[in-house]
Amino acid sequence: MFKTEITLSDGRRLIYFDQTPGDDRARLDSRGLEPATNSSQLRFDPLSRRWVAIAGHRQNRTHMPTQEQCPLCPTTPNNPSEVPASNYEVVVFENRFPSFDFNSQDSLVNSGDLGPYGLAPGLGTCEVICFTSQHDSSVSQLSQDRIRLIVDVWTDRTTVLAQDRRIEQIFCFENKGPEIGVTEPHPHGQIYGYPFVPPRVQQMIDSALKFQDTSGRNLFDEIVEYERSSLDRLVSENESWIAFVPFSAKWPYEVHLYPKVRAGNFSRLTDNQRDDLAPIYLDLLKRYDRLFAQPAPYIAGWYQYTQADHVDIFGMHLEVFTIKRDENKLKFQAGSEASMDVFISDIVPEDAARKLRELS
Amino acid sequence: MFKTEITLSDGRRLIYFDQTPGDDRARLDSRGLEPATNSSQLRFDPLSRRWVAIAGHRQNRTHMPTQEQCPLCPTTPNNPSEVPASNYEVVVFENRFPSFDFNSQDSLVNSGDLGPYGLAPGLGTCEVICFTSQHDSSVSQLSQDRIRLIVDVWTDRTTVLAQDRRIEQIFCFENKGPEIGVTEPHPHGQIYGYPFVPPRVQQMIDSALKFQDTSGRNLFDEIVEYERSSLDRLVSENESWIAFVPFSAKWPYEVHLYPKVRAGNFSRLTDNQRDDLAPIYLDLLKRYDRLFAQPAPYIAGWYQYTQADHVDIFGMHLEVFTIKRDENKLKFQAGSEASMDVFISDIVPEDAARKLRELS
Repeated sequence: MFKTEITLSDGRRLIYFDQTPGDDRARLDSRGLEPATNSSQLRFDPLSRRWVAIAGHRQNRTHMPTQEQCPLCPTTPNNPSEVPASNYEVVVFENRFPSFDFNSQDSLVNSGDLGPYGLAPGLGTCEVICFTSQHDSSVSQLSQDRIRLIVDVWTDRTTVLAQDRRIEQIFCFENKGPEIGVTEPHPHGQIYGYPFVPPRVQQMIDSALKFQDTSGRNLFDEIVEYERSSLDRLVSENESWIAFVPFSAKWPYEVHLYPKVRAGNFSRLTDNQRDDLAPIYLDLLKRYDRLFAQPAPYIAGWYQYTQADHVDIFGMHLEVFTIKRDENKLKFQAGSEASMDVFISDIVPEDAARKLRELS
Repeated sequence: MFKTEITLSDGRRLIYFDQTPGDDRARLDSRGLEPATNSSQLRFDPLSRRWVAIAGHRQNRTHMPTQEQCPLCPTTPNNPSEVPASNYEVVVFENRFPSFDFNSQDSLVNSGDLGPYGLAPGLGTCEVICFTSQHDSSVSQLSQDRIRLIVDVWTDRTTVLAQDRRIEQIFCFENKGPEIGVTEPHPHGQIYGYPFVPPRVQQMIDSALKFQDTSGRNLFDEIVEYERSSLDRLVSENESWIAFVPFSAKWPYEVHLYPKVRAGNFSRLTDNQRDDLAPIYLDLLKRYDRLFAQPAPYIAGWYQYTQADHVDIFGMHLEVFTIKRDENKLKFQAGSEASMDVFISDIVPEDAARKLRELS
């Protein structure tokens, strides 16, 4: 893997990742952008004990540009984009409209008495990862080699960002499809470096610790072992990985993808596991393309943990799901889900797994 | 208030609530419906330690019927609806496609070894509340008297359902607008009787208990007192109630409405508080109608607690929000929200409050 790092005209970092050395990787960003002024804040809600990021500058972020103006395409004479080179394989750069930013401190004016609330600067990183320079493509249409490169990029970002003590969680994910709220159609994902452990991950750690205390066993291992033996929710597997619809799936066609031998994060996978991830990940996304008449929108998010305290008990895995419950019906987070955090699923997990299995 | 209870042809309960005695309240349901077979299950996810309701029978529930076939309109010769009478003020009946149902036990076939998962029947109640017989109306267009009646209905259902020991949480809410996933356009809300305390409410109780332990004070009171004194997030108030955008609002135009004197649930409000709720609730919903060119979609959910253990520390309140962050932009729960439970809001709470205040 060839890695070339440059600085964009407003000071943001951009990194090309190539399998073979690419052209004009050193080309400068000619746009002369002013440094962005970001105002991310973290506000603490005392009732849910959760941090909420308030990022007012994101309200006017780029919204569904045409291909001619796509900021994620390579630069052309008529479109000086975010990527100065004339082509690329995979590129990662800091988001100009980030939810978290290490330059956000300035936004904290003297806030006075906060009562029961809390306030902190919205520190962190938000990187964009472009999976291909082809605007009209999708991850499911990429080659297995390209997916293998993407796995290496996720590993690189996990390893590098984990060295920054201010970052407590590295989250690699892809939102795909306008139904999910994607504002840029070009195939891309995101890599967030949160300054705290998000509630979902903390909950998993707490559950695993509790499970270990009472049973002496690892909860992630138990789940994988149970789903491997159940068969009726299995979607696919290879030597190193297994994909299944979990017994308690809350989203339509929710699939969890685990390495068969537990690892805490991307950096801890073996080369064999990384090699085997590419084909099963690609196969999985192709199934989402075939679920409905049009490729299904999805959210694909990697759960991992990099900190020394609990990395040894954590089971890294992917959770991917669509919000389409039928050809013309979406699953919404309405009152029960959004207000009470109680999910009502209309899709029986065993039925979802059967349908996904049959799409091979 | 006049209350008339009948039984629909498939055995479900329907209750008319009238300010003045209504016509043909005893009229029978002529449809001869077969009892519905519901298959709700609760499945326990060991990683999040949450129950997920799997309700496969809901996949084919009524989806956007035309007005001529509306099941929530009064019965006419051509439309034998869910409501046998030829008119009504407010009517409550058990949902034919419920997420929770006290007849769901049968669905639990011998499930064998569940590994680290859990399984329980999806017991509970799901009531539909029709706010008006006018199909094309909305709550914001109703009279203050009608809202006052609706407050009495919420109080009645809270009081009656709380007597059923199998129900641990009574949740009165309204999902409004197709953007929220509403499948019936007729103005209606829902009243869920959950067989467990939902995570959001449990979290509030845990937070309030912890706050009391460390400060000796009540967390709900602290929040109301702080927001009353801050002024810059105030939306409206009257003698008994105060509406504000909380400092840590996670949704666009999220407003919390609290009684100024804390009460644990609808049954514990004073008559004065109930009287004063009608005008401020109506005023609040009218503001959501004026936020954008079209009335904003919203979720309005009442948090309350009825059980003896913590009812004295709970602060009942409404949380209402829209998912529109701008005229043509929706706020989606994408990767950070859906997968990590970290909300990123593009709207600064103080700006949202100012805009809502100016819409009076």
